[in-house]
Amino acid sequence: MTRLPEKGRSDLAELHALLDEVHLAHIGLVTDDSPFVVPTGIARDGDQVLVHGSTGSRWMRSVAAGTKVCVAVTSLDAVVVARSAFESSFHYRSAVLFGRFSPVPDAEKEGALDLLVEALVPGRAREVRRSTARELAATLVLSMPIEQWSLRVSQDWPDDEEADVEGPAWAGVVPVATRYGVPQPAPDLRDGIVVPASVRALSAQPRPTCP
Amino acid sequence: MTRLPEKGRSDLAELHALLDEVHLAHIGLVTDDSPFVVPTGIARDGDQVLVHGSTGSRWMRSVAAGTKVCVAVTSLDAVVVARSAFESSFHYRSAVLFGRFSPVPDAEKEGALDLLVEALVPGRAREVRRSTARELAATLVLSMPIEQWSLRVSQDWPDDEEADVEGPAWAGVVPVATRYGVPQPAPDLRDGIVVPASVRALSAQPRPTCP
Repeated sequence: MTRLPEKGRSDLAELHALLDEVHLAHIGLVTDDSPFVVPTGIARDGDQVLVHGSTGSRWMRSVAAGTKVCVAVTSLDAVVVARSAFESSFHYRSAVLFGRFSPVPDAEKEGALDLLVEALVPGRAREVRRSTARELAATLVLSMPIEQWSLRVSQDWPDDEEADVEGPAWAGVVPVATRYGVPQPAPDLRDGIVVPASVRALSAQPRPTCP
Repeated sequence: MTRLPEKGRSDLAELHALLDEVHLAHIGLVTDDSPFVVPTGIARDGDQVLVHGSTGSRWMRSVAAGTKVCVAVTSLDAVVVARSAFESSFHYRSAVLFGRFSPVPDAEKEGALDLLVEALVPGRAREVRRSTARELAATLVLSMPIEQWSLRVSQDWPDDEEADVEGPAWAGVVPVATRYGVPQPAPDLRDGIVVPASVRALSAQPRPTCP
């Protein structure tokens, strides 16, 4: 992935749009002077990002304690097939946020968890029962202000040299899309419970990759 | 993403399979005592992983100089929709590799670049012209031995409590898949150049998310 200065963006709305679309983050931290990267779900809450995990998770506890983090959220949007290997690349949107997380106060924890559920499966929060006190106690919910960040966007056509454009090779872009498939009911699902609206909506999202 | 010890795997073949399928890596490093994460393309070459980039890239130069890295390769395979928010999660495969990259020797650079191209667009390397000496000189190709790594795999059905299973909520799994769309020719593509076999093969991959 080529990373040229002109790909840098400073538009906060573009950053928000990426964070509202891609909910897989890779969080980098430093442990014992060594880099460590963890994939985790993420959601935006206004000018903050939220993550959650088990109180038993070592990396979550380290992040909750305020260790410095780098949060990467990446969308791979297309393969750029140029007329040479050198000019071939990707369309991508790549956000990197820097800062420190802190625990969401107990009074706001349930609302933050609802927001995470809604980000991942819109409509699901009101289809399930409320979390129990025991479940809430076993869950760490952390927030980080969106303050220090960078966003790089690559969405150009192949930029081949003139001699290559005049040559025999094809050039173009092949879109890459992430889509949901057909819901699979759990083996222990009781008879007569239909697929809920939230799950139907996920699977009904447009699928531009289909013929 | 819950990360429980029982999800850990020690099967090298499973790691290789993930690295051969997912070519987006997030590389963590430490710069000025702070964590930094960069998304980049990756390919496996036997018992090594390869990355490449511009000699003008600061993070590539740092990685080429042998700074410690953590390489995360993640596949998000499904949303696990449980009967409670607490038990809801994801199917994923998550590899994390630790070590240091070093530059691929000049004599092996072209072969390593071909391997990267082939990983990303199988068949493309033989459809394009050879890289020029200038292009090779502007490209850093780095390799890291696959030695220290961990792999976590989550692929279970929702594990709801008995009281929830007896309740009214649906439970199941919604597959997530990454697929290629219809190739878009570049605006400057000359008439009569057809979509090559490599690009047709990408777009023809099975699309289980389609009805």
